[in-house]
Amino acid sequence: MSVKVITVGEKVLGANDDKARENKSRLDRYGVLTVNIMSSPGAGKTSLILSTIKNLRKKVRIAVIEGDVASSVDAEKVNALGIPVVQINTGGGCHLDAFMVEKALDDLPLKEIDLLFVENVGNLICPNAFTLGEDRRVMIASMPEGDDKPYKYPAMFADTDTVLVNKTDLQPYLDFNIEAFRKVVTGLNPDVTIFPVSCKTGAGMAAWYAWLESAVRGKKKP
Amino acid sequence: MSVKVITVGEKVLGANDDKARENKSRLDRYGVLTVNIMSSPGAGKTSLILSTIKNLRKKVRIAVIEGDVASSVDAEKVNALGIPVVQINTGGGCHLDAFMVEKALDDLPLKEIDLLFVENVGNLICPNAFTLGEDRRVMIASMPEGDDKPYKYPAMFADTDTVLVNKTDLQPYLDFNIEAFRKVVTGLNPDVTIFPVSCKTGAGMAAWYAWLESAVRGKKKP
Repeated sequence: MSVKVITVGEKVLGANDDKARENKSRLDRYGVLTVNIMSSPGAGKTSLILSTIKNLRKKVRIAVIEGDVASSVDAEKVNALGIPVVQINTGGGCHLDAFMVEKALDDLPLKEIDLLFVENVGNLICPNAFTLGEDRRVMIASMPEGDDKPYKYPAMFADTDTVLVNKTDLQPYLDFNIEAFRKVVTGLNPDVTIFPVSCKTGAGMAAWYAWLESAVRGKKKP
Repeated sequence: MSVKVITVGEKVLGANDDKARENKSRLDRYGVLTVNIMSSPGAGKTSLILSTIKNLRKKVRIAVIEGDVASSVDAEKVNALGIPVVQINTGGGCHLDAFMVEKALDDLPLKEIDLLFVENVGNLICPNAFTLGEDRRVMIASMPEGDDKPYKYPAMFADTDTVLVNKTDLQPYLDFNIEAFRKVVTGLNPDVTIFPVSCKTGAGMAAWYAWLESAVRGKKKP
């Protein structure tokens, strides 16, 4: 059975890669920096997006695509801030794909956007295999998940541009060795940038904002 | 594309269900109570299994099947306790299936086991669709993930026998409303049993041990 699944997966992935390239060209034409945000459920993807909107919105025009198996609770939070947002419900699917994102792009004012966040479905495995047309991949590791996650989910840590280690406010109550974590992650991915942060208290977030704003400024505008 | 994936998925699921029934018959013949443990990455599946082994091993003969995308760190922890354990590495797959479990059963001394834990891959979505031949489904929700997870991952909460709400030791530092959580989960699943626990401090674990031991005693021995 596993052979069958892999064969189908390869076909699907090839079609997805083609569509992702189309999405990327389209977003490039409008000069939209696109960031694919991935993590386990509840690691803080929406909290990161909301904090970043509040901090950067005066300088950067932001929009959001929200991906979830079900519900629109996250999109409602973004919408409450007056930011353009499209909710994708995968209806059981465990990741976003480039076809879903293409449809969402039709509903966004691309001419008026500098930065597009795509919040993927909460999952440390499958989202990694499906590129969406993004410029940057950002993953969030939540401290309460433990420092052994890079051993167990190596592909996502290996393929990301940035790892945010969130919920540092809980570190005093956890057995999380940040140096051990950093060593394993940079072993998998020598070029990765790691930001320890707390979306709740704001600790460490200035470095993330600076990194992101620099990436937005580096994107060629039409 | 989504139609293609769904069609294949149905074929795969049909074959999986057949194999799961075979696994179930085999485990029934030996009177092994089989528990499929599912959660997000880092919610505490291995901690729960290790605590339960330490507590029940004098009364119940336990074995474990460990499922992970990569690594054998969890199996090594179980092995260190002198408990029979088989590691399954899915090599990128985001869930266990009944075929993988069948192979693992070949390597376990089924005659000498009362309780078999199957630790699924850390994922709140796909493991739910693949039955393995289990008697009971147990899912762990980790308090730091937030109390909104049942809205976003409803299928797994709807299909489980038991939800353990783990890491209650962190509750003073979190905005987690246990009553709101309980209301949503019982709305999805009126028959579910919910145990707030801390695998770290042991708080609430006595009720879980009692529930589990009762299920083991209720399983018909050959």
